[in-house]
Amino acid sequence: MEYAALPSVSTDPAYGAGMAAARALLKARLSAAGFQNVGEIDAGGHPAVVGEWLGAEGPTYLVYGHYDVQPPDPVDLWHSPPFEPTVRDGRLYGRGVSDDKGPVAIALETLFAFLKVEGRLPVNIKILLEGEEEIGSKTLAALCESHRNRLSADAVISADGARWRADLSTVNVGTRGNAGYEVTVRTAWKDLHSGRYGGAVPNAPAVLARLLASLHREDGSIAVDGWYDDVRKAHPGEREGFAALPFDEAAWLAPAGAKAHGEPQFTTLERLWLRPTIEINGLWGGYTGPGGKTVTPAEASAKLTTRLVPGQSPARTGGLLKAHLEAHCPAYAELIFEDQDRGTPAYEVPPDHPLLAAVERALTSSEGVRPHRVKVGGTLPLSAIFKERLGVDTVTLSFSTADEDFHAPNEFFRLSALDEGVRAWTALLRDLGGR
Amino acid sequence: MEYAALPSVSTDPAYGAGMAAARALLKARLSAAGFQNVGEIDAGGHPAVVGEWLGAEGPTYLVYGHYDVQPPDPVDLWHSPPFEPTVRDGRLYGRGVSDDKGPVAIALETLFAFLKVEGRLPVNIKILLEGEEEIGSKTLAALCESHRNRLSADAVISADGARWRADLSTVNVGTRGNAGYEVTVRTAWKDLHSGRYGGAVPNAPAVLARLLASLHREDGSIAVDGWYDDVRKAHPGEREGFAALPFDEAAWLAPAGAKAHGEPQFTTLERLWLRPTIEINGLWGGYTGPGGKTVTPAEASAKLTTRLVPGQSPARTGGLLKAHLEAHCPAYAELIFEDQDRGTPAYEVPPDHPLLAAVERALTSSEGVRPHRVKVGGTLPLSAIFKERLGVDTVTLSFSTADEDFHAPNEFFRLSALDEGVRAWTALLRDLGGR
Repeated sequence: MEYAALPSVSTDPAYGAGMAAARALLKARLSAAGFQNVGEIDAGGHPAVVGEWLGAEGPTYLVYGHYDVQPPDPVDLWHSPPFEPTVRDGRLYGRGVSDDKGPVAIALETLFAFLKVEGRLPVNIKILLEGEEEIGSKTLAALCESHRNRLSADAVISADGARWRADLSTVNVGTRGNAGYEVTVRTAWKDLHSGRYGGAVPNAPAVLARLLASLHREDGSIAVDGWYDDVRKAHPGEREGFAALPFDEAAWLAPAGAKAHGEPQFTTLERLWLRPTIEINGLWGGYTGPGGKTVTPAEASAKLTTRLVPGQSPARTGGLLKAHLEAHCPAYAELIFEDQDRGTPAYEVPPDHPLLAAVERALTSSEGVRPHRVKVGGTLPLSAIFKERLGVDTVTLSFSTADEDFHAPNEFFRLSALDEGVRAWTALLRDLGGR
Repeated sequence: MEYAALPSVSTDPAYGAGMAAARALLKARLSAAGFQNVGEIDAGGHPAVVGEWLGAEGPTYLVYGHYDVQPPDPVDLWHSPPFEPTVRDGRLYGRGVSDDKGPVAIALETLFAFLKVEGRLPVNIKILLEGEEEIGSKTLAALCESHRNRLSADAVISADGARWRADLSTVNVGTRGNAGYEVTVRTAWKDLHSGRYGGAVPNAPAVLARLLASLHREDGSIAVDGWYDDVRKAHPGEREGFAALPFDEAAWLAPAGAKAHGEPQFTTLERLWLRPTIEINGLWGGYTGPGGKTVTPAEASAKLTTRLVPGQSPARTGGLLKAHLEAHCPAYAELIFEDQDRGTPAYEVPPDHPLLAAVERALTSSEGVRPHRVKVGGTLPLSAIFKERLGVDTVTLSFSTADEDFHAPNEFFRLSALDEGVRAWTALLRDLGGR
């Protein structure tokens, strides 16, 4: 409750004091519990809080979480103040309680309890609590580079990341990557009068529409040459595992008001978890105000993102996309193609990773059923960063749930998760320690 | 000069006094010259100034012009104040001098001179000086209906409309029509996270892009079923006439920075004057701010206008466009199609119209060369309105030129046009009067 009351919003400098207070609380708790080398490290951004306990034999695990939260806006939609955590009907309401303060508290309190009751941890643990997760982990890669020794470990256990559903025991084994682009088509130096020029010169929005339409086939599959070349084949049993998941597609689509549409020969879950996409996130050009304007626009633009799956590299798919658009852009138009970022590759835990097996055993023990392996259609840069910069894999053991309105008003955290989480973390730590 | 100094801007109520002053000046001049029934008529909008002289035998001609002008903004780009008409290098600079005060002055001063010198006009003349041309002739159709007797005539001579070029004697024999639409595609109730939904639900901008791309073939021709059905065949000699015009396509395209593109088998002038178009005037959807946003937009929209040619009716082409979009819209998307207006059909003077022949003789006599017949790719609603509401044709005899920056800063009118215009109007009136 004390931790959740601190307004540690990373995106807005006005919350600097809240950020500092959250770091101070975490450092005090870590030190009091017996962690060593507790402190702050940074690579030019908000500092991360670190600490370690290395009194055991064997491997070292880096426990990851973040202390920064999303802004509370729009504040007037909250039923209780965002930074006055409030319990109602078995739920704790407050900004950041689900993302990521509750899950971090579960991990830390379990570790603290081991130290208090047994005087030691079952395994070596390093702690990394990031302050920039909600602003895209801007300096996390640099932090890994500049503090490699401080962060080196055999694997990462992430307390960030949400359980897919409240009614199903699951473990996330992968995320899609992404990369963003902006595409502009230019057909003239200035907008032209459609009466004086229309029909005799190109229309930039029409050229853009043709280019965008060329990216997909009518069935929803991607028409860019080579796009699927590097997509790795499904692991043995992977598609069967997803098919066996209880999943009510109609119930999933209903709140969105959307119909299912995507690559044929793949189910909705496969489309989300195993297949890459090219999405148009926005487009604009010409006159967009009220009424009409008889203009032949000189320019039109679109923002695109690609979601990538294991095997694909953002550098290669970005090149394929660019080559496709250049090949399809007619000679009477100019194409401007911009990378918006260097992209993040997909991440997946190797199916036979020992930490994954340990987490599955821990969840089976604490929940009484074996968890299903699921994936995430979105992108969490941190696993890819840890893989690339520290050379280690990340397994998620988080007890937030995807429906808990993080990033929205009235974010909540199920109090029942505290108990579930502490039991699972306890089982995992004992398992990793060989007990 | 006095007339051009009056700020008769129709679109902005702040210029009400300037509008009234322009009407007062026109009425005073008409009355002083000997016109009868001088006054104002309106159909709920800015009044039009009318007057008539019906002392001759034979047909009656309605002389049309407008006294309203475009706003002068941006005022700081003017080299002399927009409502302080200034002569520099043989040009009169000021808002409205070319559109349409100079051309109206030519017509009126010629008529006044006949009355002053000969005491009569060669033919019966009615005068209609509209106050809403620059705001789309909003109430002109209603005005024709409500004042049919006052405006009835055998044909209209328009002093509005611009000469194609300063270096070529031409007569405009037609305009394209137009009609405006707004198309929206909806695929969900709200924007969705592209990681959580991307690949498994439709993307509204992608659906819109496919729909827009389906409107044209790759060669620029229109792919809407039946679109060309009603396009009338070229008149005998019409295409040959256009082909004989001196026209430097590269020089025409250069200031626009555009390349030629349009229906194969037609020249640039034919594409502008004889062929219909579907133009995308604007499009928008999803996130269009700085940076990126990983969103699968629920909605995307476009504004379209169609340019129509003789034979086509806006009601039918609008129906064809709607039917095409509906037929191409996939079942997983909702299409909202809105007419923005009822549309304006193309207008053309019948090639054998006696008034057209008279204007051509007058120009031949005053300019020493026979004028070329040309058309206008844009749309002037008034000719279609006069045809529909009064049942009469309109021939244009204007001495503004298309390069005179009307609707822009530093609008100007060539002073040489005053002499050319008065000579042509004199020749026309004598010709129509049989002398």
